[in-house]
Amino acid sequence: MLKRYLPVLTWLPHYNRRLLGADLLAGVIVTVMVIPQSLAYALLAGLPAVVGLYASLLPAVLYALLGTSRTLAIGPVAIIALMTGTALSSVATPGSAAYLEAALVLSLLSGAMLVAMGLLRLGFFANFLSHPVIAGFLSSSAVLIAISQSAHLAGIDAGGYNALDLIASLVGNLSQLHWPTLAMGLGTLLFLVLSRRHGVRLFTRLGLTTGTASLIARGAPVLAVIATTLLSWRLGLAGRGVAVVGDIPAGLPPLTLPTPELSLWKALLIPALLISVVGFVESISMAQMLAARRRQRISPNQELVGLGGANLAAAFTAGMPVTGGLSRTVINDEAGAQTPLAGLFAALGIGGVTLAFTPLLHHLPIATLAATITVAILTLVDIPLIRQTWRYSRSDFSAMAVTILLTLVEGVEAGIISGVVLSIGLFLYRTSRPHSAVVGRIPGTEHFRSITRHEVETLTSVAFLRIDESLYFANARYLEDTVLQMVAREPGLEHVVLICSAVNLIDASALESLDAINARLQEAEVTLHLAEVKGPVMDRLKRSDFLDDLTGRVFLSSYAAWQALKASPEAGTEEAP
Amino acid sequence: MLKRYLPVLTWLPHYNRRLLGADLLAGVIVTVMVIPQSLAYALLAGLPAVVGLYASLLPAVLYALLGTSRTLAIGPVAIIALMTGTALSSVATPGSAAYLEAALVLSLLSGAMLVAMGLLRLGFFANFLSHPVIAGFLSSSAVLIAISQSAHLAGIDAGGYNALDLIASLVGNLSQLHWPTLAMGLGTLLFLVLSRRHGVRLFTRLGLTTGTASLIARGAPVLAVIATTLLSWRLGLAGRGVAVVGDIPAGLPPLTLPTPELSLWKALLIPALLISVVGFVESISMAQMLAARRRQRISPNQELVGLGGANLAAAFTAGMPVTGGLSRTVINDEAGAQTPLAGLFAALGIGGVTLAFTPLLHHLPIATLAATITVAILTLVDIPLIRQTWRYSRSDFSAMAVTILLTLVEGVEAGIISGVVLSIGLFLYRTSRPHSAVVGRIPGTEHFRSITRHEVETLTSVAFLRIDESLYFANARYLEDTVLQMVAREPGLEHVVLICSAVNLIDASALESLDAINARLQEAEVTLHLAEVKGPVMDRLKRSDFLDDLTGRVFLSSYAAWQALKASPEAGTEEAP
Repeated sequence: MLKRYLPVLTWLPHYNRRLLGADLLAGVIVTVMVIPQSLAYALLAGLPAVVGLYASLLPAVLYALLGTSRTLAIGPVAIIALMTGTALSSVATPGSAAYLEAALVLSLLSGAMLVAMGLLRLGFFANFLSHPVIAGFLSSSAVLIAISQSAHLAGIDAGGYNALDLIASLVGNLSQLHWPTLAMGLGTLLFLVLSRRHGVRLFTRLGLTTGTASLIARGAPVLAVIATTLLSWRLGLAGRGVAVVGDIPAGLPPLTLPTPELSLWKALLIPALLISVVGFVESISMAQMLAARRRQRISPNQELVGLGGANLAAAFTAGMPVTGGLSRTVINDEAGAQTPLAGLFAALGIGGVTLAFTPLLHHLPIATLAATITVAILTLVDIPLIRQTWRYSRSDFSAMAVTILLTLVEGVEAGIISGVVLSIGLFLYRTSRPHSAVVGRIPGTEHFRSITRHEVETLTSVAFLRIDESLYFANARYLEDTVLQMVAREPGLEHVVLICSAVNLIDASALESLDAINARLQEAEVTLHLAEVKGPVMDRLKRSDFLDDLTGRVFLSSYAAWQALKASPEAGTEEAP
Repeated sequence: MLKRYLPVLTWLPHYNRRLLGADLLAGVIVTVMVIPQSLAYALLAGLPAVVGLYASLLPAVLYALLGTSRTLAIGPVAIIALMTGTALSSVATPGSAAYLEAALVLSLLSGAMLVAMGLLRLGFFANFLSHPVIAGFLSSSAVLIAISQSAHLAGIDAGGYNALDLIASLVGNLSQLHWPTLAMGLGTLLFLVLSRRHGVRLFTRLGLTTGTASLIARGAPVLAVIATTLLSWRLGLAGRGVAVVGDIPAGLPPLTLPTPELSLWKALLIPALLISVVGFVESISMAQMLAARRRQRISPNQELVGLGGANLAAAFTAGMPVTGGLSRTVINDEAGAQTPLAGLFAALGIGGVTLAFTPLLHHLPIATLAATITVAILTLVDIPLIRQTWRYSRSDFSAMAVTILLTLVEGVEAGIISGVVLSIGLFLYRTSRPHSAVVGRIPGTEHFRSITRHEVETLTSVAFLRIDESLYFANARYLEDTVLQMVAREPGLEHVVLICSAVNLIDASALESLDAINARLQEAEVTLHLAEVKGPVMDRLKRSDFLDDLTGRVFLSSYAAWQALKASPEAGTEEAP
């Protein structure tokens, strides 16, 4: 029981020196690798760079204690940073104290929601984000981030959280373009792209194993950070107009208390919910993928608690909303992390840097960070998936397209909300006009298929109608129309058999419709039968009066109905054509 | 084509003297019968009594031209009046000029929405109001109306649009209790209840036909109106503190233009939508019931246009939102109306009264109107249906219970919205955790049923899993878990057959899950097969790469899979126990 709520207890007792070695190495590597991205994502959210470091400390410790994934690495991530910036700028001015305070409230709300969802076992909520909506959201968010970073690459101030605003302010401030910044930004970008594309091949040719090679190739951003910082320091670029990270206060994060201002809490409620759900989906997908590869188990509801704890920790240590990050997790995994202790070591490492080495980051150019973000984020743009969705299902594609369009035009919140609402709406619309098929017997078998798709036998006075949907309020009336129109079309009909093999539910509204159908068929002297009613559905029907009123019978199978009704004198067989 | 949009053209050319006689008689009867309720419902909405008369004129004419029901009677109705009062009192003070103006805006918006929904063929939207939610909403609204009217019965001023407010103000103003008003109110109430219960029996005993007897019994409210008005006039009750209708301006309704104040329009948008949908549902249910009885056809989308036209007419003639009324339609039908001309004649009759006879209504006591509303409305409280829903489905019942509770506690808008949202939410929740059953063959047949419910044969190395739900984003991950857990439980398994007879849709998210299941089973050296995939689902799968990657086959029927896999050397049969 305790193990369920404190997963640390499942692995800590079996801890040994071999695991410690692996985790320590991974911790050191992650410390070095994630500092640049932590700074960059804080800036992306409109917060001081140091907030990104703070958010990589205690939150990671909390997740190590509460989370169920062994190698998930927690901290600020690009999409959540973008969503955070959007939410905060709607309630405060970037750079103001109120903006910082709002970030704490957002973390607190998001953390509380995640913990609550976990304790209430509401992890399934995340399932309502369909894959196409997530993919569309990630792709378009990545484009938004890339646009905003391209401004930093050129030393231009650009604000806004949708593509139109961003491009407008980018173009409007084009006169700010700073050639030295652009040169360094593009240089870094080129280096990163090349080392991402060709780095692994180069290092394996030099005789390294693939694992080590890919780890070193992933170290390219660190190399770029060191090189450009040195360059910036030696050439005094800050004095020549190149934007640098500047002074970062040394020391551990201060203890913070989120302001109890109710109107602010109210304004951030929806953004916090969206950040929680999107963060959870991003994190759990990765955790499940890794766990599957290592044959470990993830508990979605406990993951909610772990992520919630991390965000609560961020709220009280001057942080920002965090989740399991794609790139930092991959680094952690490839560096050989075995248990959450690796995350703890990385947190200790980052804490050490925050305590003593922040002056080293003073000369780091913002353009370098922009280049690292841009290269990392563009992997989220998944054009083949978009094309594949278009081919497979227009309905899925339209949900995806609306998500992409609204994320770009209106921003992340409008995008994700409209995607979810539209995909639920389309599903409901689809189920409200269910497919049904008149079926006949495939000769020589007991199997019944559609008369339009297969060569089947039919009985002249008996119609077999297969209903291809659960019967519930949204389609109850439609069913009435379908059956009554069919009867109106075929005057010789004496029996209607509703094949319920695909009916998984008959709700109270549909029961009333079945009653109505039964009564109306009775007036027309047509007998209504049911076949292949599933166990759970039948159990429920028995609790109503419907079965007493039913003019016909309930057959176990369509074939049983066929045999019984074929025997009646008026039923003539029509052979398959 | 023209006939579709102007249904009057379908019946007017065949009009004859016999129909004219019937319609004229019905028109006269309806005129007399509906005047009291028209006044009462306007008062219920917090509007001057005469607005109820105005709203029974031009709107009825418009519906006669545009509607598809032959006997539906249009005008103010109780539930819509209650919803109107709730909406208006949120934007203006009852009795003020702004309140009257808001009523016109509400009619205009509601009319425009109905027409738009009709032209866009969105009639199916109304299906999302499930029967239990509608029944719960009607029952609790009726209780609200009865409480507000019981104040009038006793001469007490009571305000509010939820049960708590109403009861609080009723109790608070209890000192206003006016004994002569109460005596007359209760007397009228008793008379109406008795004549409703025993009237028909009495008159048939006196030798009348059942039809005539029930019509006369329905005339009881008119009798009560006449008797109490005479009494009030002779005894000068108005001077003794009994509230009466008072002066009603004579003459046809003025031409009105709804104010183009945008903030008011915005505030009334949601109420107008709710009034439109509830009004449409109330109206269409009745129209369909009557049409079925007379073997006529109703076009839901054209009905939307007809009701929309009626509400637009109300907006421009000092009216209020209207719809097809239960009681006035039953009166019209029983009075023998044959075509919409009966409604036109009734409108002419009411117009005549409005022109010349409003002074006759001066002394009509408000308590009489309250008694007529109370008796009419309480028929909507359907306790047996509530009990029946509880027995049949807890999920349907909970949607109903929430609707009832929130309507009483928070008012009509909160009630209906929460009912709809909850019933959709419960449906989605249900489909997100689909039922599935491991099935086996019923010996000697080709039919497969659940191994827990039926005595079936199974194959030791083959699992037949029947999925009882369409596969879409909300349950895609759940399916993965189900299949993989089953495989983990049974190590000897070599084949899994997913029986898709109940799968009516596989969306892009579910396709990814199927891909994942296929890959994971392949790792575990288990072959995945599908059986009974429906035509439309198969068509779509063929557009993806899934069928190429599938390790097993797609069988036409479960039995075909059984025969093929039974032949494989490792499959042993286990007989039914």
